[in-house]
Amino acid sequence: MANSPTGDSVTERLLRVLETFTPTRTVQTASQIGRRAGLPSSTAHRFIGELIETGLLERDEDHRIRVGMRLWELATRSSAALRLRQAAMPAMERVQARVGEHTQLAILEQGEALFLERLSSPDATSNITRIAGRLPLHASSSGLVLLAHAPAELQERILTGPLAALARATITEPAALRRKLAEIRRLGHAIAPGYIEDVATGLAVPVRDASGAVVAALSVVIARDAAVEAPLEALHRASRDIQGALQA
Amino acid sequence: MANSPTGDSVTERLLRVLETFTPTRTVQTASQIGRRAGLPSSTAHRFIGELIETGLLERDEDHRIRVGMRLWELATRSSAALRLRQAAMPAMERVQARVGEHTQLAILEQGEALFLERLSSPDATSNITRIAGRLPLHASSSGLVLLAHAPAELQERILTGPLAALARATITEPAALRRKLAEIRRLGHAIAPGYIEDVATGLAVPVRDASGAVVAALSVVIARDAAVEAPLEALHRASRDIQGALQA
Repeated sequence: MANSPTGDSVTERLLRVLETFTPTRTVQTASQIGRRAGLPSSTAHRFIGELIETGLLERDEDHRIRVGMRLWELATRSSAALRLRQAAMPAMERVQARVGEHTQLAILEQGEALFLERLSSPDATSNITRIAGRLPLHASSSGLVLLAHAPAELQERILTGPLAALARATITEPAALRRKLAEIRRLGHAIAPGYIEDVATGLAVPVRDASGAVVAALSVVIARDAAVEAPLEALHRASRDIQGALQA
Repeated sequence: MANSPTGDSVTERLLRVLETFTPTRTVQTASQIGRRAGLPSSTAHRFIGELIETGLLERDEDHRIRVGMRLWELATRSSAALRLRQAAMPAMERVQARVGEHTQLAILEQGEALFLERLSSPDATSNITRIAGRLPLHASSSGLVLLAHAPAELQERILTGPLAALARATITEPAALRRKLAEIRRLGHAIAPGYIEDVATGLAVPVRDASGAVVAALSVVIARDAAVEAPLEALHRASRDIQGALQA
């Protein structure tokens, strides 16, 4: 439907426009959007004009363009992200109150860990995750839990692909990663000391739905040398609470 | 660009498709979406197929269609909703810990109060608001605060329009609403006893940005006969904290 001369659909064009907005690039001019989305200037201006008319994009006080509140509302109000996050929030707040560090909820999305929620303390350990941000499966504690319970096909794809070193301790050897995944399944949680940042250890547990399928990972980020027992206990308890909330 | 025979743009068509998903209608078949969006069947199936291909919609385990995680991610990661919510969360958690009831953050959007965040306690008072849900400006405590500080044009539109009675105590007389808005500006907060539900009182304060402009309303919902002084004090303090966080 409605293909352009270059053969891309308007839907693909919309996706490319939305992808030009990132956590660190929240406002742009129409020209910048067009250039970054690879659209001819006149096409970009007309298309962006339409998106602004419908509220999917909007202009800020300085007439720059940002993602519209209307798009956020429509993408959020019925989304599985919101339902999962709402079921998890009371348990996440208890973890955060007990551990006093960042508490996060992530799901598997297109071969990466996508973070649905993050609760933070002002004086918590360094942590690069963001809400609606992503981290690689092999490096983050959440990603490792999700990968350990992912379909074999995805595991093989990750194990045979490049394993980027995000920090000195990131696992980059396929054999070591395979052993780590087996350990995570055996222990029921992931411990990722310095895999993402030298100074921090990620701890994560699987979150299961009523059928027992792993639907998310719940994690905290603590100082590299902090004790893991109490945070892990809080995570395991929270995971059971969330499973209960998902059944209700 | 890419107008259909009926003259609507693909962007409008996308908006109509997304609008068929609501908090209570999170999954649909392609035929249901097409019918509810007013699209011819073949158009609907082709368009929905494109949206699924790009991940803006997705199929669940039962092959029904829902809003895609990818769309949620793109609509959220750069959005003003997320920035405001993140600035407000620590203060909202303190309000919730102190008051023990629902704590909510709302903005003015298209003449209604749009709720960006809601923290809940399992045993809190009855409350109909939802994240990414809306309430009328004249009835909710958040809406009244937003309306009291809205441009005169919007105030006149609401004051001269129909004022629906959501509960027995909802203000439905323009003169009474005008007095209420003046009172909110004078006191610095809104008290809405039974305006939305007979059993509950909404309390709300304005949240200001660095320039002093009201950018949101922070509210709690308490039992109709509960004391308002301590919750209002917690709200006023939180509002100052959020203003500080927005300046940082």
